[in-house]
Amino acid sequence: MGAPDVQKVSVGPETAEDPLFDPQLLAGLDWSDVKHMKGGVTSSSPGPGLRVRPLCKADYDRGFLQLLAQLTKVGEISREKFEERFELMRGSSGHYYITVVEDEERGTVIASATLACELKFIRGCTKRGRLEDVVVSDQYRGRQLGKLIVTTINLLAHHVGCYKLGLDCRDE
Amino acid sequence: MGAPDVQKVSVGPETAEDPLFDPQLLAGLDWSDVKHMKGGVTSSSPGPGLRVRPLCKADYDRGFLQLLAQLTKVGEISREKFEERFELMRGSSGHYYITVVEDEERGTVIASATLACELKFIRGCTKRGRLEDVVVSDQYRGRQLGKLIVTTINLLAHHVGCYKLGLDCRDE
Repeated sequence: MGAPDVQKVSVGPETAEDPLFDPQLLAGLDWSDVKHMKGGVTSSSPGPGLRVRPLCKADYDRGFLQLLAQLTKVGEISREKFEERFELMRGSSGHYYITVVEDEERGTVIASATLACELKFIRGCTKRGRLEDVVVSDQYRGRQLGKLIVTTINLLAHHVGCYKLGLDCRDE
Repeated sequence: MGAPDVQKVSVGPETAEDPLFDPQLLAGLDWSDVKHMKGGVTSSSPGPGLRVRPLCKADYDRGFLQLLAQLTKVGEISREKFEERFELMRGSSGHYYITVVEDEERGTVIASATLACELKFIRGCTKRGRLEDVVVSDQYRGRQLGKLIVTTINLLAHHVGCYKLGLDCRDE
């Protein structure tokens, strides 16, 4: 007998560009009913030099955390801590859809929003979505990026089966 | 060479009584600062014939879904669907802490509340908790079970590292 017959799922070596969630989900969004974006902007064609995609580990070096800091307190987060949290999120399949807009020329993350999903028993074992941590870099205001990213999350929520999309509430 | 040196985590055959989360978390709660429970009631000594514990699959037959239906729409959920959702929740380690009160004599689930956790990057990679789907059977009102289960979730949230516990918001 040779080596034991162990199946290994091999998808090539992991890279820092590996997405938090399947990018096909974004590609599959149906924008045909969206009327409020000027110039026919969608997540697949967000405008010259821009790209809408899932968060990846390399965004640590593209200013993702600095962007979040425009929204709220972020604190010191080492690369190791960032990657560990990223892995936990990616491992919680179907829960975290952090979507970013990148300025590809500058290699900078300029907008971000999170779709966080939660499984329920109620309503026939439903899935609840929440829109969270929406931020557009202050250097890119007035370019409908807020609308773009929020609409993307909205379509994504329906696409992944959320019965509704709630807003994060700022607590007690 | 004999069998390949594969470590298998063996914890005995799975049973319908296996908990959604580690019961030691409930046993480890510190009730010493809780002043608002009459008769020294805690999650470890909830009163005669009662038990506070994690949800398990067998609760499908102990009226868990009928209890939830006192709170909101539940719909038809087959045993298979229930168990599938339970597995998904259990597999999302550190996310779902559905805690129930059982009337052991009657073998009925008489109260339930959910601590749902969400991982964040903000605030130094924090963990956010939400208190959700709190329900006490209408036959057991006035026995401070609501206070008991909500306080339990509150202590549990801190115990598992949530920086704060939010209330579920009833949306838009």
